[in-house]
Amino acid sequence: MGVESLKQAVFRQVDPAARTEGLSLTNRIVILLIFLSVGAAVLETEQSVSAGREALFRGLEILFGLLFLAEYLARLWVAPLSPECAASRYPRLKFMTSPSAIIDLLAILPALFTLAGGATLALRFVRFFRILRLAKLGRFSRAWRDLGEALSSRREELILAFSLAMFTLLIASTLLYWAESDAQPDKFGSIPRTFWWGIVTLTTVGYGDVYPITPLGKFFSAIVSLAAIGVIALPTGIVAGAMSDVMQRRRKSGGE
Amino acid sequence: MGVESLKQAVFRQVDPAARTEGLSLTNRIVILLIFLSVGAAVLETEQSVSAGREALFRGLEILFGLLFLAEYLARLWVAPLSPECAASRYPRLKFMTSPSAIIDLLAILPALFTLAGGATLALRFVRFFRILRLAKLGRFSRAWRDLGEALSSRREELILAFSLAMFTLLIASTLLYWAESDAQPDKFGSIPRTFWWGIVTLTTVGYGDVYPITPLGKFFSAIVSLAAIGVIALPTGIVAGAMSDVMQRRRKSGGE
Amino acid sequence: MGVESLKQAVFRQVDPAARTEGLSLTNRIVILLIFLSVGAAVLETEQSVSAGREALFRGLEILFGLLFLAEYLARLWVAPLSPECAASRYPRLKFMTSPSAIIDLLAILPALFTLAGGATLALRFVRFFRILRLAKLGRFSRAWRDLGEALSSRREELILAFSLAMFTLLIASTLLYWAESDAQPDKFGSIPRTFWWGIVTLTTVGYGDVYPITPLGKFFSAIVSLAAIGVIALPTGIVAGAMSDVMQRRRKSGGE
Amino acid sequence: MGVESLKQAVFRQVDPAARTEGLSLTNRIVILLIFLSVGAAVLETEQSVSAGREALFRGLEILFGLLFLAEYLARLWVAPLSPECAASRYPRLKFMTSPSAIIDLLAILPALFTLAGGATLALRFVRFFRILRLAKLGRFSRAWRDLGEALSSRREELILAFSLAMFTLLIASTLLYWAESDAQPDKFGSIPRTFWWGIVTLTTVGYGDVYPITPLGKFFSAIVSLAAIGVIALPTGIVAGAMSDVMQRRRKSGGE
Repeated sequence: MGVESLKQAVFRQVDPAARTEGLSLTNRIVILLIFLSVGAAVLETEQSVSAGREALFRGLEILFGLLFLAEYLARLWVAPLSPECAASRYPRLKFMTSPSAIIDLLAILPALFTLAGGATLALRFVRFFRILRLAKLGRFSRAWRDLGEALSSRREELILAFSLAMFTLLIASTLLYWAESDAQPDKFGSIPRTFWWGIVTLTTVGYGDVYPITPLGKFFSAIVSLAAIGVIALPTGIVAGAMSDVMQRRRKSGGE
Repeated sequence: MGVESLKQAVFRQVDPAARTEGLSLTNRIVILLIFLSVGAAVLETEQSVSAGREALFRGLEILFGLLFLAEYLARLWVAPLSPECAASRYPRLKFMTSPSAIIDLLAILPALFTLAGGATLALRFVRFFRILRLAKLGRFSRAWRDLGEALSSRREELILAFSLAMFTLLIASTLLYWAESDAQPDKFGSIPRTFWWGIVTLTTVGYGDVYPITPLGKFFSAIVSLAAIGVIALPTGIVAGAMSDVMQRRRKSGGE
Repeated sequence: MGVESLKQAVFRQVDPAARTEGLSLTNRIVILLIFLSVGAAVLETEQSVSAGREALFRGLEILFGLLFLAEYLARLWVAPLSPECAASRYPRLKFMTSPSAIIDLLAILPALFTLAGGATLALRFVRFFRILRLAKLGRFSRAWRDLGEALSSRREELILAFSLAMFTLLIASTLLYWAESDAQPDKFGSIPRTFWWGIVTLTTVGYGDVYPITPLGKFFSAIVSLAAIGVIALPTGIVAGAMSDVMQRRRKSGGE
Repeated sequence: MGVESLKQAVFRQVDPAARTEGLSLTNRIVILLIFLSVGAAVLETEQSVSAGREALFRGLEILFGLLFLAEYLARLWVAPLSPECAASRYPRLKFMTSPSAIIDLLAILPALFTLAGGATLALRFVRFFRILRLAKLGRFSRAWRDLGEALSSRREELILAFSLAMFTLLIASTLLYWAESDAQPDKFGSIPRTFWWGIVTLTTVGYGDVYPITPLGKFFSAIVSLAAIGVIALPTGIVAGAMSDVMQRRRKSGGE
């Protein structure tokens, strides 16, 4: 009985779905830990901050790893109480194979690598993994899930817009390769190399490291720049529409 | 009685809410003074204009300060007539703690600093304060307040869009740091340093002071540039939606 | 009677409003002349084209001027037949003071200047005037007028968006002047000079001739770049809304 | 009878309209071949990939050409079964003059050129033609056709937006030519040369190879950059509207 009521209390602490509103203290602490661990991972890359403090950052990483491990074990323990897992024959196995549990398990890995030490390349990869701890946040926010659903319901339109962008990129790069490959062989020497110019132009970033210098190249580039407006307008329209769907749904359910 | 009717007249002159339509002569003069004082603050920084005219700019600043002080005192005097403050037990205290009164008080400060003289750093800070006198204009325009309300009612969506932008910025900077830190250690040497590249790319400003040079960096940069379209589309959709709300409300209330 | 029927025929030739659909032969010739005269004005500035052909371009310009003069006199002659001018006591005076007639008169001026010769500065100004002959086209297109009306009905919102952009520009330039004036006095040495950086950043053009180099300047610039998204989103929303109004009105009246 | 049933089977294999849902195996193979042939054409331009493998790429090209020829002949053979061509007196002639059949015929040409050999210039042109094989994909996707129809129904609005962009480009280039031609004769020496700056600024690409340096040029450039927002907003609004039409139609017909 004592164990069961403790289990209930833990469940209400670790599962955001167990409460109709707000987040429990444990949830808030976990969110804070996520931000702190990502912040530490970002700062560690800056030599002027981390030089001479390697032990501190190592200790922090192991601490974060232990705390995330404790949260994972607690969630595993109370999994049979969760409505989604309770229906299954093996509720804990069901929990372990759910996306949010896999994300939580992956978030512990970098601390293990840090404990074990390792080569430089592995360390770099691990650093990237620590940044992805932000994905743990997704479990706590309904707005993110709403946006994800809205975008995934417009999957086909987004694929269409992406295909059109890739098609325009290919035609644009072929035209510029045709016009500029003799004048600037290092930047426009092949179609794959010209892709870099194409992306920089179609997204209107325009760094200025590659641009056409021949009259024909400038003429094609002008047409591509104008086409870029359409290439950007399509996904903008789709994403803005999906966003307005999320807003309407939230207003309805929020009762505002 | 004479004092009361004078108070009434002053109230109608200084409070835009006291009149159903248009602005009083005093309001118009104050608006003009705001533009003049901001204009003077901007011009004073340009050496080719201000050199040899220090006394003129100093005198102008003190004059503007005195006039804004007079307006503030007048508003304080007639505060008990204002519907918002009259309900309070201490109407003048209520007025003094309202946002618009605090803005008006802050707008007088720079003139005091100018009178007192002061160190160079303080002067620079004061100069920035003078620019913020533009915020005094907010009191006179219903459209600005409407827009502010429309945006604040979509607070949550804007926070969601901002979080997504920050998340993308972090992932993008980590990827580019991973790919470019060896090739360009001064520009991509740590994740915080790479943030500058990330902002310049995600907002499609693209100054051209930092850009990837390795094939892997260019590949990641291409993906980030495409993701930028979505990152920009979300707030664009929200702001455009808020703007269309303002327009509909104005048409209804304006009866057009 | 012969004169009157000639007048009627001329009226049907020169006034697009006299026909329910399509444009008369004269209208089409005038439109062609507008494009040809603008094309000639553009090409004349390119030395590799105009060198040695000064007499040709001079002759063309005088020819275009004479033809536009003939059109103007014809329109003046038949003005009493036009519904807008007929109601007036002095229909020809009414016509001469209408915007489209003033534009047509101004379009003849450059030819007179060319005939009279003139100084280099005057010539440059005249060249710009010739480009403005494109404004004559406005008379022939209903779509342009529809768009103009749609935008002018949203005048207040556009002014609001423009004010917000100017306000952001001023704050942004003050912040960057504050952060960068010591490091780059030639580019950020005063607030007015920093405006150039502000415009290039807020419109996301990002030429790359001016950008912050201090950490504080980069931090402020990052915030300004993010604010730019909102500054651009407001007018985009307004213009797109006005455009959709034009489209709906055209579909209704076009019966499509 | 055996021939007729074979014809029926071939028809069901080559014509996507013959099946209510999904694509036949032959369709899928043709789509794969299109991507492979375009990929080969792109890679062939990169010396580090193609050097020493000329015979391989030549062989691949001839293989792709033969397979596309086979598909074309099969479609020609079964054309009388297609509802669109059956009504005609000469169904095969009708098929041969349809846009999709012309595209398919053109897609075979590059292989013939490769077989025949040819001069360098012709080869370059042929390479561009191979990229256009992507246009063959249009036949297999309803979404592309829907988008094409939605955009073509807003033809007039797009022409209006394009005219406005060209008009702004012309005015902007004339102003900048006027202000900068003396300071930077190589970049702003004539109006046609200034068009390059105009396109780079109006589309907000901003490479940074050309930008104004005189105060007047910067002032005009600032106005043009602000006008660019409107120039981009018009087509963005039209394209986003057309996209939302496509989405609504798909939802209705898809029954989602």
